Amino acid sequence: MKKVDHIGIAVRDLNAVLPYYTDTLGLPLLKIEEVASQKVRVAFIDAGNIKIELLEPMDEQNAIFKFLEKKGEGIHHIAFGVDNIEERMNELRKNGVQLLSDQPKPGAGGAMVAFLHPKSSNGVLYELCEKQ
Amino acid sequence: MKKVDHIGIAVRDLNAVLPYYTDTLGLPLLKIEEVASQKVRVAFIDAGNIKIELLEPMDEQNAIFKFLEKKGEGIHHIAFGVDNIEERMNELRKNGVQLLSDQPKPGAGGAMVAFLHPKSSNGVLYELCEKQ
Repeated sequence: MKKVDHIGIAVRDLNAVLPYYTDTLGLPLLKIEEVASQKVRVAFIDAGNIKIELLEPMDEQNAIFKFLEKKGEGIHHIAFGVDNIEERMNELRKNGVQLLSDQPKPGAGGAMVAFLHPKSSNGVLYELCEKQ
Repeated sequence: MKKVDHIGIAVRDLNAVLPYYTDTLGLPLLKIEEVASQKVRVAFIDAGNIKIELLEPMDEQNAIFKFLEKKGEGIHHIAFGVDNIEERMNELRKNGVQLLSDQPKPGAGGAMVAFLHPKSSNGVLYELCEKQ
C-alpha cells in the first residue's frame, strides 16, 4: 500500500463531463474503456502523480448507478496500488478490516481489484488495485 | 494544476480515526495542526505520492461540521498543487468555473487555498493549494 493509483469519480454522462477535465482543467485523457464485468464505462485522466477515473454506469444494477441514485455525482473511491493483492487482503482481514469480496476481481486497465468496506474506513471506500 | 497534493477526508473524531491509518493501513502520520482560520483540526498522513488530510471540525459553524451533518464521514475534497494561485483562479473564471471565494485564503500547512464550486465540477469539490 505504497501509493495512490487513482481516485474514482461517479458521473452520469461521461461524454458530458470529459470536456471539463480535458479543456477547462487542461488534464490529458489517457484512455476510455468499458469494464464488462462491472458494467461501467471508464475514462482515465492524467492528474500528474495519480489518475482520475471517471465512472459511468452501463446498467441500473451496478454499484455506480446505485451510488448516483443515493448520493449524486461525486467522489466514489480512492485506490491504492499494491503488489500481492491477496496477501494485502489477508493482512487487512487479520487487522479486523471488512472487505467487500473474498477474492480480488478484474477491474479497469486489466488490474485485479478489491474494496475495503466503508464501515471499516470511517465512510471512505478504499480500493486495492494490482496491475498486471 | 500539475499534480494532486492531497485528498481531504471529513472525520468526526481525529483521535479515534488516526489508528486506522497509522496502524491498520500502516501509513505514516506527518503532522497534526489546528487551522484557526477554518476552525478545523487537521492530520496529514503520508500516502506515498500524495497526502491524506483528515479534517475534524472545531466548532459547529464550519464547512466540515456542515458536511458531516449532511453526508456523514467520508471524502470531502481533492486538492491540486499549483503555482501562482491567483493566475489559476483567473484562468478558471475565464473558463466559466465558479469559485467559492474571490481571493485565496490561508489553509493548513501555511498554504494559500481556493475552492472550485462543486456545481462547476460535477459534484466534486476541488481545491487549489499553493505552498509558500
